[in-house]
Amino acid sequence: MSMNSFGHLFRVTTWGESHGPALGATVDGCPPGVPLTAEMIQVWLDKRKPGQNKYTTQRREADEVRILSGVFEGVTTGTPIQLMIENTDQRSKDYGDIVEKFRPGHADITYWTKYGIRDYRGGGRSSARETAARVAAGGVAREAIKMLAPDLKITGFMVQMGEHKADNRDMDQIDQNPFWVPDAEAAKTWADYLDGLRKSGSSVGAMIEVIAQNAPAGLGAPVYAKLDTDLSAAMMSINAVKGVEIGAGMQAAMLTGEANADEISMGPDGPVYSSNHAGGILGGISTGQDIVVRFAVKPTSSILTTRKTITKSGENTEIITKGRHDPCVGIRAVPVGEAMMACVILDHMLLHRGQIGSNQGKIG
Amino acid sequence: MSMNSFGHLFRVTTWGESHGPALGATVDGCPPGVPLTAEMIQVWLDKRKPGQNKYTTQRREADEVRILSGVFEGVTTGTPIQLMIENTDQRSKDYGDIVEKFRPGHADITYWTKYGIRDYRGGGRSSARETAARVAAGGVAREAIKMLAPDLKITGFMVQMGEHKADNRDMDQIDQNPFWVPDAEAAKTWADYLDGLRKSGSSVGAMIEVIAQNAPAGLGAPVYAKLDTDLSAAMMSINAVKGVEIGAGMQAAMLTGEANADEISMGPDGPVYSSNHAGGILGGISTGQDIVVRFAVKPTSSILTTRKTITKSGENTEIITKGRHDPCVGIRAVPVGEAMMACVILDHMLLHRGQIGSNQGKIG
Amino acid sequence: MSMNSFGHLFRVTTWGESHGPALGATVDGCPPGVPLTAEMIQVWLDKRKPGQNKYTTQRREADEVRILSGVFEGVTTGTPIQLMIENTDQRSKDYGDIVEKFRPGHADITYWTKYGIRDYRGGGRSSARETAARVAAGGVAREAIKMLAPDLKITGFMVQMGEHKADNRDMDQIDQNPFWVPDAEAAKTWADYLDGLRKSGSSVGAMIEVIAQNAPAGLGAPVYAKLDTDLSAAMMSINAVKGVEIGAGMQAAMLTGEANADEISMGPDGPVYSSNHAGGILGGISTGQDIVVRFAVKPTSSILTTRKTITKSGENTEIITKGRHDPCVGIRAVPVGEAMMACVILDHMLLHRGQIGSNQGKIG
Amino acid sequence: MSMNSFGHLFRVTTWGESHGPALGATVDGCPPGVPLTAEMIQVWLDKRKPGQNKYTTQRREADEVRILSGVFEGVTTGTPIQLMIENTDQRSKDYGDIVEKFRPGHADITYWTKYGIRDYRGGGRSSARETAARVAAGGVAREAIKMLAPDLKITGFMVQMGEHKADNRDMDQIDQNPFWVPDAEAAKTWADYLDGLRKSGSSVGAMIEVIAQNAPAGLGAPVYAKLDTDLSAAMMSINAVKGVEIGAGMQAAMLTGEANADEISMGPDGPVYSSNHAGGILGGISTGQDIVVRFAVKPTSSILTTRKTITKSGENTEIITKGRHDPCVGIRAVPVGEAMMACVILDHMLLHRGQIGSNQGKIG
Repeated sequence: MSMNSFGHLFRVTTWGESHGPALGATVDGCPPGVPLTAEMIQVWLDKRKPGQNKYTTQRREADEVRILSGVFEGVTTGTPIQLMIENTDQRSKDYGDIVEKFRPGHADITYWTKYGIRDYRGGGRSSARETAARVAAGGVAREAIKMLAPDLKITGFMVQMGEHKADNRDMDQIDQNPFWVPDAEAAKTWADYLDGLRKSGSSVGAMIEVIAQNAPAGLGAPVYAKLDTDLSAAMMSINAVKGVEIGAGMQAAMLTGEANADEISMGPDGPVYSSNHAGGILGGISTGQDIVVRFAVKPTSSILTTRKTITKSGENTEIITKGRHDPCVGIRAVPVGEAMMACVILDHMLLHRGQIGSNQGKIG
Repeated sequence: MSMNSFGHLFRVTTWGESHGPALGATVDGCPPGVPLTAEMIQVWLDKRKPGQNKYTTQRREADEVRILSGVFEGVTTGTPIQLMIENTDQRSKDYGDIVEKFRPGHADITYWTKYGIRDYRGGGRSSARETAARVAAGGVAREAIKMLAPDLKITGFMVQMGEHKADNRDMDQIDQNPFWVPDAEAAKTWADYLDGLRKSGSSVGAMIEVIAQNAPAGLGAPVYAKLDTDLSAAMMSINAVKGVEIGAGMQAAMLTGEANADEISMGPDGPVYSSNHAGGILGGISTGQDIVVRFAVKPTSSILTTRKTITKSGENTEIITKGRHDPCVGIRAVPVGEAMMACVILDHMLLHRGQIGSNQGKIG
Repeated sequence: MSMNSFGHLFRVTTWGESHGPALGATVDGCPPGVPLTAEMIQVWLDKRKPGQNKYTTQRREADEVRILSGVFEGVTTGTPIQLMIENTDQRSKDYGDIVEKFRPGHADITYWTKYGIRDYRGGGRSSARETAARVAAGGVAREAIKMLAPDLKITGFMVQMGEHKADNRDMDQIDQNPFWVPDAEAAKTWADYLDGLRKSGSSVGAMIEVIAQNAPAGLGAPVYAKLDTDLSAAMMSINAVKGVEIGAGMQAAMLTGEANADEISMGPDGPVYSSNHAGGILGGISTGQDIVVRFAVKPTSSILTTRKTITKSGENTEIITKGRHDPCVGIRAVPVGEAMMACVILDHMLLHRGQIGSNQGKIG
Repeated sequence: MSMNSFGHLFRVTTWGESHGPALGATVDGCPPGVPLTAEMIQVWLDKRKPGQNKYTTQRREADEVRILSGVFEGVTTGTPIQLMIENTDQRSKDYGDIVEKFRPGHADITYWTKYGIRDYRGGGRSSARETAARVAAGGVAREAIKMLAPDLKITGFMVQMGEHKADNRDMDQIDQNPFWVPDAEAAKTWADYLDGLRKSGSSVGAMIEVIAQNAPAGLGAPVYAKLDTDLSAAMMSINAVKGVEIGAGMQAAMLTGEANADEISMGPDGPVYSSNHAGGILGGISTGQDIVVRFAVKPTSSILTTRKTITKSGENTEIITKGRHDPCVGIRAVPVGEAMMACVILDHMLLHRGQIGSNQGKIG
């Protein structure tokens, strides 16, 4: 019942703080025989790595992952995989204000209130740096999925930044811009918009979508380990996330039954659906359609505008959060959301195999 | 790792199907010494009970709960509490179409695909009747909370039905209408609207908000047992829920850092916040503000309009779902959301006490 | 993390007290498609049932199990199975001494000290009646095992009663005597011995062995979910058990490396071992040999000899425990040990299938 | 449900192999505010460290622990503590026979059979080197216990080596000899005996006892998280352990009810018991007496005598296990047993506090 773990059979425990010597993930329950190298994982870490363009924090971290256990001769052994990432650019000399003052919108005040102690350096455990460990674990999950469901494909992208929505879903565009947005036009508009925010020391929220294509039908375990339940917990656990949607999401509140119920017909390879309001999940179990999750990331609370706050000793004061920060943390949340999707799906594949084996139901 | 359980220390396992002899909840980890009677729990079940007005299913269930264990001389003993509700109005004679056909939008096809067998009677395990067990467990949680935090108050209400939003938050109105909506005007409009839908055999989605007032600061356990993580899992696990929001929710994507960061000042009894975009949770830990959760419920998929579907043997066909159904299942989701909030909050109170005891941090 | 649950994927939660209305087991994670009726389970409950001969408590319980959920048309659905056994012979009128006094050797004093409340009627939750729920759950596990490993056979028997050991292992004898002892001579000696103890109001301990034959190699998950770890937890959780052994057990302390290391050679169907000091488990994983577990049950503490004790208010006093008790509770522990073995083995079959699938290693 | 984790609230996950770059423990759920340095943990690791005298393996490992997270300014923060120990003396050049052959009594054959791959270098994950991580975690637990129950004292010692029992319990002797035996005479006899075994390349088993003095009454959570259940699982999970006993242990089978039921009287500070057959635990809950656990360790299977075995390809062959090994692994199991006791007791202190708080029952 570790508070810093998630997953049932594929179980990930992350550890480490923003400015400690290292952080990482202990991954237990990975199937044996999966080819795995640090390079395979590094690909995904590089995608999340800070300082790659002017839109993300200028902290310079190599984010190099080392595999300390669980892999032998290039293959997973089925025992715990320890993934360690050393912190190299901590710049810990001067923390100034934040030692005594609580930054509004950050976890400073709640960590203090809960624990009576907090590692104030860069947010300590509550720093978004923790998500590097998730991305590393997600890299392991992806390789295991490759063995079990080679056609399964997980793709994350931004669909909204502040008031600006992406109008297109041109998946080929995702890798062509620094925002992972599937819309070339939006990419341009967003670049200008974010540049302005960055220069003024402001920040903005974002919405990210992650889809899994070609996931097998039958994943998910009612009633409290539903696939959507586990996905929403996974996404909500990411720093700064305030909302999670499956398929039609919050908009489902506005639909009538006629509009919402995706009709079914028989296709050449099994059931085919007329639409996907369900986001690929019915009753907590995957249908075989695309699994569609969206989540909203709040703007980073580190801004250059003065904000009112209090000190540890209870005095009213003000704070400006200088330092190296992302004007839109949502950008770097894209690979994190993909990683969480990969972990949850692999976990449910193993769970399904455990309880059901190959005795799944057939249609036709 | 039971798939039908939730909670860490206050652990609830539900069991039972829509048309079996009974359903219920096994509640483990309740503190001892909590006064508890069936009547205390029945209050909440009656709130969820079907057939109370024309807007909910006409299935007539007494929904009478029996306490089979864990209570001695009117007080909890600290051992498992078994709460059983017998099914009395199953009308199981004729299931007609649904034995062979999959109802679109329902879990029929996914249960079949996953398990190779399904209890088609009323949806079996995937029926919303399962939520009665949650409400019963929530009743236990409420009594335990009373002992630990007497001022804590949990209130659920509808904020939207289809396109119709509630404009007011007049909490005194909630119990004055069949929709639990805090807006007398909305109640009238909704009555007409839903009556129309009901008569035409249609249905509509809804949005529910649940707030917890006077919850202690410090609840929640980073990084994967955050209070918001557990709340979103709890709400997403409710039948028909497609989206969950904390505080500003999905709208957080549109905010700037200036707008979003709730400013802090010192009040007479501790920190006071200028706003509550955070929904009472920062870094996964409660701030002491109101804890605010919203979730969207899709329209029931059982409608009188013909929909295309397939049979178990893979043939294309059509279906009309007759029977006793709610035109807006969101109504009865209100007490369910409240129950889940109660369970999650109690669980985190116990977790916090376990790890931290009374050594919490102080401000000032 | 329910305290009243065990198992990873095949997860059993028991509930209920000795003198409450009912007790039972909530069984989650059972594979779907397993033929299951109450009668199949009743067979094992009848074996444990009290009052069947003069050597067990004269409490008369029908111990009739009802399946309240999780089975449809005679087959498991993969959803939680609720097994309920009503208490019919509670005789709750007069509890006399035990309301105020703590019976030595019983859990009276510890339940009081822990919880500040205790159901004193027949020991409440700490009564050996709880084991009926385990036996019912074990009945489910046995049926699932039949589907997965038809040749697997679980057999429990007594190997020692007080100072009297069984010299033979004539398995055909087990069902021929009230002690489940595989030794006709021992059965006679024990009958006389126990008759004497019973008449004098005394009691005696016992040692039980449970073996699983034809269990597949590869079950068990290092390092903390080893097959022997889970078996020892399962057996130690049974009321009155004070020691658990695997294979050579405590005697392993006396062996040299030469004596202990079971030699391996290749047989027609795979590896063959020269001996089984390991009890069928190496490094926490089954070898394919017989899995051998032994456990010691202490004598029931309810005896007719006066014992010193104290009252709730801390006064010195004496107590004689009258009532209906087993002179040797070890007898009825035999079916309980078998049930726990069945549950643990099924659980590990599912776990193994989940993580490994069919990619197991091969020899030759 | 990580297979390489144990504990409920104080949750330890170990990782790493004998000949990988490092091994360690991820410790989650530790209370905040506990003073902790690497030096405090190193004390216990040094006690377990190999190569300290001629009776333990000559592998030279510094076994230096590093704290990578969860500690800030010398105090625990309540977030995961990562304890890493680098492997420095792997000597991995030549593994000879063991690449193809299975060593009898070792986990070689079962890891291969389960996973289809095994890290043969020094036993990989099944090596007793894993216990270094447990000892490190136990060091953390001890410091947390100091804050919660300053008088609680955990002591492990050997009570038997092969056929040689310790006749005395002179606790002052424990640290005076390389066997941690509380009997000066035994220490002499054992030295000669073990020297002989060592020279002949043989090995022998041992029995270890671990006691916890001044543990609070009320620890343990029925029915499946009993204190004795969790202790037996903890001890059985240690490499080479084949039996676990609480109090009278397996000998309880031979006792009568009169002999076994420890009588209770009222002392100046609460209940006093005439004896401790229960090992300090009744109904799974601590009484306040000494908690007494014993476990048997089998002889190391690495001996210089030729043993029959088979190869991966299924051929009969023979093997001699050369290399650096302990003639009696039981010696180094003493600090490991202590560490497991510390972890289990702390875990149950937190669990108890979580569910019960300070509302415990009182006597008198």
